[in-house]
Amino acid sequence: MIETPALVDQYCHGVLRTELGLGTFETYLGRTPAPPASGTTFFDTQTGFAVRRWCPPLLGLEPHCPPARYLARRRELGVLETGRRLLRGSGISTYLVDTGLPGDLTGPVEIAAAGDAQAREIVRLELLAEQVADTSGTVDGFLANLAEAVHSAAGSAVAFTSVAGVRHGLALAPHPPGPGEVRGAVGRWLAGRRAGAALTDPVVLRHLLWAAVASGLPLQLQAGTAGPGLRIDRTDPVLLTDFAAATAGLGTDLVLLHGYPYHRHAAHLASVFPHVYADLGPALAHTGARAAAVLAEILELAPFGKLLFSSGARGLPELHVVGARLFREALGRVLGGWVGDGAWSRADAERVAAMVAAGNARRVYGLPEDPSDGGGHR
Amino acid sequence: MIETPALVDQYCHGVLRTELGLGTFETYLGRTPAPPASGTTFFDTQTGFAVRRWCPPLLGLEPHCPPARYLARRRELGVLETGRRLLRGSGISTYLVDTGLPGDLTGPVEIAAAGDAQAREIVRLELLAEQVADTSGTVDGFLANLAEAVHSAAGSAVAFTSVAGVRHGLALAPHPPGPGEVRGAVGRWLAGRRAGAALTDPVVLRHLLWAAVASGLPLQLQAGTAGPGLRIDRTDPVLLTDFAAATAGLGTDLVLLHGYPYHRHAAHLASVFPHVYADLGPALAHTGARAAAVLAEILELAPFGKLLFSSGARGLPELHVVGARLFREALGRVLGGWVGDGAWSRADAERVAAMVAAGNARRVYGLPEDPSDGGGHR
Amino acid sequence: MIETPALVDQYCHGVLRTELGLGTFETYLGRTPAPPASGTTFFDTQTGFAVRRWCPPLLGLEPHCPPARYLARRRELGVLETGRRLLRGSGISTYLVDTGLPGDLTGPVEIAAAGDAQAREIVRLELLAEQVADTSGTVDGFLANLAEAVHSAAGSAVAFTSVAGVRHGLALAPHPPGPGEVRGAVGRWLAGRRAGAALTDPVVLRHLLWAAVASGLPLQLQAGTAGPGLRIDRTDPVLLTDFAAATAGLGTDLVLLHGYPYHRHAAHLASVFPHVYADLGPALAHTGARAAAVLAEILELAPFGKLLFSSGARGLPELHVVGARLFREALGRVLGGWVGDGAWSRADAERVAAMVAAGNARRVYGLPEDPSDGGGHR
Repeated sequence: MIETPALVDQYCHGVLRTELGLGTFETYLGRTPAPPASGTTFFDTQTGFAVRRWCPPLLGLEPHCPPARYLARRRELGVLETGRRLLRGSGISTYLVDTGLPGDLTGPVEIAAAGDAQAREIVRLELLAEQVADTSGTVDGFLANLAEAVHSAAGSAVAFTSVAGVRHGLALAPHPPGPGEVRGAVGRWLAGRRAGAALTDPVVLRHLLWAAVASGLPLQLQAGTAGPGLRIDRTDPVLLTDFAAATAGLGTDLVLLHGYPYHRHAAHLASVFPHVYADLGPALAHTGARAAAVLAEILELAPFGKLLFSSGARGLPELHVVGARLFREALGRVLGGWVGDGAWSRADAERVAAMVAAGNARRVYGLPEDPSDGGGHR
Repeated sequence: MIETPALVDQYCHGVLRTELGLGTFETYLGRTPAPPASGTTFFDTQTGFAVRRWCPPLLGLEPHCPPARYLARRRELGVLETGRRLLRGSGISTYLVDTGLPGDLTGPVEIAAAGDAQAREIVRLELLAEQVADTSGTVDGFLANLAEAVHSAAGSAVAFTSVAGVRHGLALAPHPPGPGEVRGAVGRWLAGRRAGAALTDPVVLRHLLWAAVASGLPLQLQAGTAGPGLRIDRTDPVLLTDFAAATAGLGTDLVLLHGYPYHRHAAHLASVFPHVYADLGPALAHTGARAAAVLAEILELAPFGKLLFSSGARGLPELHVVGARLFREALGRVLGGWVGDGAWSRADAERVAAMVAAGNARRVYGLPEDPSDGGGHR
Repeated sequence: MIETPALVDQYCHGVLRTELGLGTFETYLGRTPAPPASGTTFFDTQTGFAVRRWCPPLLGLEPHCPPARYLARRRELGVLETGRRLLRGSGISTYLVDTGLPGDLTGPVEIAAAGDAQAREIVRLELLAEQVADTSGTVDGFLANLAEAVHSAAGSAVAFTSVAGVRHGLALAPHPPGPGEVRGAVGRWLAGRRAGAALTDPVVLRHLLWAAVASGLPLQLQAGTAGPGLRIDRTDPVLLTDFAAATAGLGTDLVLLHGYPYHRHAAHLASVFPHVYADLGPALAHTGARAAAVLAEILELAPFGKLLFSSGARGLPELHVVGARLFREALGRVLGGWVGDGAWSRADAERVAAMVAAGNARRVYGLPEDPSDGGGHR
């Protein structure tokens, strides 16, 4: 087996603070807000099976026990103790937490305490803009307050993240919008907000991306993921090629989140642009028993110094566990297989495992070194 | 090994009634009406090798025997006896038969008799429309007769199927065309028919799709397959996203047929839309020794209650055998591997095998239960 | 293990004539002219690891030795002796060499001598046009000289190759441009050349493709590969569907080079068009330890008589070695696995291995037979 150090989870969310029934728990296993089809359940998915494999033992149950028994044990322990046991059993030592989701989710401080780990904040650009809009009366006020908010966030957060791909698709014009264009779009958006319109305007979304690029903090871009309302090919990371070309050499790194089923495209971009990185996260957590196969596909083109682990977990600490355990097992299996074949040396495999598990993320996000991380070499 | 019950083949065609020479037999192994390139043969394909693996033993020959010897044995037995032996050796207990292909092919009654199995009809919308057009003198007459024909078919058939994707590509406007638009398009199509024009008009094709949706019967949509005359990306199931959104909640299920090489996209749609299902058929039959690998890719995102086996076979009973045997072996290997790794429990694996082999199809198409089918659970 | 005959490398370039330092060597392992990201190295890629696996033993070192030790040994032997040892250890007996790259690279005669092998020239259309333009004063002169140059090249070269996909993307109009259109485009291009403009005009590029088609020589088309300046989906071979349809039946074969990550699309085209072939080359060399998995994906749809090995190597003889060794090992592993499962017979597997390693290329390019090549059969 290949040794892997404690993980840096470069993208996740907090966990729910409330006790969960079977139905609510199940909705977090699906990929859509819609209920499962009649006669089916989201427990019958790779994610559902992976939760039943990895989590029951951390709560003192047999792997693969029925969902109802697992949920009963969860209620018996209580939400706080369940979260502590699961997060501490995940093998993650640092959580980078996107705090931009609605809902009663724990923040970085609580996750760090529950998981006996480090945690840092990732700021979601679209939420930041909506918060600024709530307190800004005019276009000028909004733009000035936004610049201030981005500057301030850059001083404390570890990265910005954008859901422009999910809001509008990734086929955005690659260059910064001009000042007049931005003022017009912001004005229309602020006026529409009073009627409840979400932020989907491509000019405002691009203005946010370029504000983040100017901050120098790594910018995470959601790609290759879409609910029922958006064609998934509109989130193909290949659509970011021109944006990557436009931001090359500016000193800001881009991190392509998720990627699946276009993860080979994300790996391609990471191989041709020095400042582009690719995520190994939800692609593995959603594919469960197939995690090793999907990981191996990402490892085809991507330079090994350009890949970053994440769990992509949201709401349930079970998803942090599943993301981390699937990743660690998949990495061990894939790299161990190559060592067994003689294709890789064991020393190289352990070095690469340390890089993608933690070392690359520590370098990209400027996190303090960890003694268990072997890092890159020349 | 994972036990799999008798199969429901949710999409296939009949078999040829005539004796076949080597050349005619070979054309059914290719994916195009064109002859093979000089110096090559369609026997040298995954489908050809799979036929030579699985079928000779059912006719008393060695696996992998030369094509000429196999064809000689086939002629010796005669087309009827060959069909009986092959279909009865396939492991399929229910055939859903698309009767809309031209050529001298057996229908559901004959297949049921030859295969000692159940069989039901799938009605192809485009052929139904062409048949109605043959006996309708006017636009009004056509539209009234079509409504009647769809209603009548819905009373006896088990599903509708559409080749709109192959005729026009799947980039169809997602909403029902307006009455005036339909009348205009039908008029132009009926006029053109006298000159031999095929039904490729997107408005008429959409009218057929919505007539089927209104019937409540499951609607099968061909995707991810194209001959030399159409770019295969124009049949990417992702192009059906907006149609799936427009038909959500109406009570009619959509079944994405084939899918390969976009089968991960089909699985994605099945995971985000409760009424969308994905097929496991020709993707396996065309890829032969790779069937387990392709099946595993489909099993990444798709909920296990949303996948349906089919053979997609056409013309040769050998193709029903190959589709069924490849599927059963691939399913056993993939799920058995996950059980061996501890990723899945054996009980879950056998339950999922029963669902995708037969149980899901029985539920979606309202077929009578079969004692060997374990079904889903909660 | 499956026996594979000596290889025909159907697409490669020459090797550098100069001694190489560590940094220059490393740039040939990357997929972009840009330097690697800070803290990373192109040695930490599948290509880098494959070079360290296969090449040190050919120079008397341990596999996986550190890059600096390997480069030191390389300098000790000298560039000529290193090239001889590597090329002779590659298992390639015939090199088809694209001579159209800039830089101080060896040509077919030198490669043949260094590798103790046969070598033939592939003529790159865009370079041929640029050379003709250098010596043509007028549009009429250019067109006449180009026709003469294509005719002359067809008499000596073994194939034409085009980088139209990399220059402009593959979404080119499929039919030959009209004479007036060509004259206008050539005139604008010749005028622009004086200002240093590269040949990217789609009309001129199409004129070159059709001049090659008219010659009857096989035409190789680069697909599925792109540097940072081009969206990789603009090189998806599916974009060549209409061009393939337009050239069907004309007697000229099309060979889709590379393909990855769209190699399944290339295999699809090879399965529906008799005159279309698919390459097995850089897709394997770039994916290293994953070569068997990628090869297996290509072997899904493509008829076995339509696949051709290449190394795609450029600059470093190490890349010829890596391409050939990865291919041979991947082929043995994939086909051997299918024989072990009983899916294929051993005789079929060895016949297919001989076809894709050499026999198909000998047939397509009209190369003399080799006693070790089993060829196709009926």
